[in-house]
Amino acid sequence: MPVTDIATRVYNHGWRLDPVVRSLLDTDFYKLLMLQLIWQRHADVQATFALINRTTSVRLGAVIDERELREQLDHARSLRFSKRELIWLAGNSFYGKQRMFAPDFLAWLADFRLPDYELRTIDGQFELHFDGPWTHTTMWEIPALAIVNELRSRAALKGRGRFELDILYARAKAKLWDKVERLRAIPDLVLSDFGTRRRHGFLWQRWCVEAVKEGLGSRFIGTSNVLLAMDNDLEAIGTNAHELPMVLAALAGDDAGVAAAPYRVLEEWRAHYDGNLLIALPDAFGTAAFLRHAPDWLADWTGFRPDSMPPIEGGEQIMAWWQAHGVDPRQRLLIFSDGMDVDSIEATARHFRGRVRTSFGWGTNLTNDFRGCDPEGGHALEPISLVAKVIAANGRPAVKLSDNPAKATGNPAEIARYRRIFGDEGRPARSVTV
Amino acid sequence: MPVTDIATRVYNHGWRLDPVVRSLLDTDFYKLLMLQLIWQRHADVQATFALINRTTSVRLGAVIDERELREQLDHARSLRFSKRELIWLAGNSFYGKQRMFAPDFLAWLADFRLPDYELRTIDGQFELHFDGPWTHTTMWEIPALAIVNELRSRAALKGRGRFELDILYARAKAKLWDKVERLRAIPDLVLSDFGTRRRHGFLWQRWCVEAVKEGLGSRFIGTSNVLLAMDNDLEAIGTNAHELPMVLAALAGDDAGVAAAPYRVLEEWRAHYDGNLLIALPDAFGTAAFLRHAPDWLADWTGFRPDSMPPIEGGEQIMAWWQAHGVDPRQRLLIFSDGMDVDSIEATARHFRGRVRTSFGWGTNLTNDFRGCDPEGGHALEPISLVAKVIAANGRPAVKLSDNPAKATGNPAEIARYRRIFGDEGRPARSVTV
Repeated sequence: MPVTDIATRVYNHGWRLDPVVRSLLDTDFYKLLMLQLIWQRHADVQATFALINRTTSVRLGAVIDERELREQLDHARSLRFSKRELIWLAGNSFYGKQRMFAPDFLAWLADFRLPDYELRTIDGQFELHFDGPWTHTTMWEIPALAIVNELRSRAALKGRGRFELDILYARAKAKLWDKVERLRAIPDLVLSDFGTRRRHGFLWQRWCVEAVKEGLGSRFIGTSNVLLAMDNDLEAIGTNAHELPMVLAALAGDDAGVAAAPYRVLEEWRAHYDGNLLIALPDAFGTAAFLRHAPDWLADWTGFRPDSMPPIEGGEQIMAWWQAHGVDPRQRLLIFSDGMDVDSIEATARHFRGRVRTSFGWGTNLTNDFRGCDPEGGHALEPISLVAKVIAANGRPAVKLSDNPAKATGNPAEIARYRRIFGDEGRPARSVTV
Repeated sequence: MPVTDIATRVYNHGWRLDPVVRSLLDTDFYKLLMLQLIWQRHADVQATFALINRTTSVRLGAVIDERELREQLDHARSLRFSKRELIWLAGNSFYGKQRMFAPDFLAWLADFRLPDYELRTIDGQFELHFDGPWTHTTMWEIPALAIVNELRSRAALKGRGRFELDILYARAKAKLWDKVERLRAIPDLVLSDFGTRRRHGFLWQRWCVEAVKEGLGSRFIGTSNVLLAMDNDLEAIGTNAHELPMVLAALAGDDAGVAAAPYRVLEEWRAHYDGNLLIALPDAFGTAAFLRHAPDWLADWTGFRPDSMPPIEGGEQIMAWWQAHGVDPRQRLLIFSDGMDVDSIEATARHFRGRVRTSFGWGTNLTNDFRGCDPEGGHALEPISLVAKVIAANGRPAVKLSDNPAKATGNPAEIARYRRIFGDEGRPARSVTV
């Protein structure tokens, strides 16, 4: 006799909203590390973040109902850090370190809420801006991306039959497990989940993280998602992102200040963090230029996270820099996180094995790979290249060049100026999928 | 907030038994058609059925706990046809015919229960016998097989982790759906589920049947499982089996009587059934011998179910026989049901397309194909060749030769005698997988 829990069923049918984001910890760990630094050093900076859909062929405004998007954004704005979340942030150790977050910062977090947003639909695309103190707008990056991506998945699956959905998720699970079995064969693999922002959905990311934990054991070192780290007793993984050099460069004013900004970020960072958190992100304005002028003391840092050059090429540039600074790369770490999947993880791990420690942040291809899984075919579930980037700080335009011109953001005049400042060395055009 | 229905959870933990068979309708439809004939014509015949494990490398007695097996068999013996089941048998039409089952037969069924069994474990194999009136022992075939097969699956999966099971079933679902997508491409496909006896488990068969119904639409004409047919408003599919000629031959006594038995079965059958139920099973003692002596009127029957020769070869023999009898095979039906899977269904359908109507009974490879799905690897979930065959009637030994010596059953002396009577024409040894 099938038993139906009538109360549950009636409750489920009465949902006003099925929230995408249910906790402010449902974000990437690097946001909290950066937020502490921003709060302590740049509390007066105003920063504007904007959603940027690089996959222009997907007209998000036509796929997702704007009203639904507003409801989800409004719901995220209603969230506060809960008591047990703050206690966990205070009491947990991160990267082996106790008291990563200062008591006054956590006290401030207790009153935190996401700031307002501006949303319009123009030519089938959303114009979604977050304007306000950097300490607040920075926290929209991950929830905004997770919300838009999950609403897109939901829209694609609306009205599907029970069996179609059953097959879809069965195939996606089988596909992920086949990847896990290939990853198991990689010697000395070190891997973490970086897939929050572009996930198919929260429940799917949770399943993926639990599956990879089950399948890879100690080779899976954790997740960038703070909520999943807490719930699953995993390490929270992450360090810093492009917004730090982008904002500091925007605030710098003259060309010399812009050129110096990436290194000021490093100085600020090492004043706050140490050990395994000393990971440099070299590509905000181009890796080649960054390394050419990098201070010698950077060679003492734990490692680099090359994020927009092909992994082997990017890694080799950094290896050469270490060697030029008399450092044995085997004592250093490279973290690869740009659109990685099993093929590139295998190739990169094989290439660098024995020469440098490697670690992989597996993102979109972990938490949103439904390619070939949809019984209806089509591309509605394929991931898109959606980012939320800082576009202005204190009213000045912010720019990212990266090693790949397709990933550049900012207004054309400012991009041209930054290219004059940093040069175009090592920056051929490459296509971006995710 | 995850909601746990405490009552359901406590109830589930308190189960004394998770029954494999929960209804006497959880059997193959041909058993009911044959039972009506046996009850009307052979009510006085005693018949012994025995479980035969042709896959001797799998030591069932070491895999399955004998006490668990007894509990399941005892539970099956506690079942009665329920009122709504009898009403459905009386009121439903089968093969387009109303009142397939006579009221007095249904009245008798209302009191039916499975007879006792004898079970011993010898050398790691079960000796499981059902001895008594043919009208009762015949009904053990399907539940006994389903119980042993499902207990074997359960034993293989005992102690597995939640994720392993999740991946196992995800892969099996994905695998089945890939088959469904291939089957969809076969022009004019006619297919039914014949997978009750060797299913992985009842719930899995139910999922498979619902999936194939969803995926193939009208190309899926129904299931041999009467309970699933009733529950899903599908056609119940099936006609007759080898036990009829086997018992009649055993009872016949002299060689002439044995030789005539297969044709007496046809006469008895056509006295009870007509239309699409007029399907002859030619291979009990070899198809070549059967066709050589078959009565001309058999050419008027709807078709044949070749069941132990390679499908194209078996079909061609029957085609030739029809042509020799002046019948256009395009007006006739061939039902293929011997270990079919997508490759052989594709090849057979392609071979006969436009020359004869074909229909496929998809059995073990529909409801128990976990090959390549087990994250632990190994063969514990691979189907085995397990049958329940009549071995004696009124104390005389029963024999099946079939077109494949590996599928012969009976004692060696009797098999030798039957081979003298029917000849060995067209009976090379072939391997049997399921």
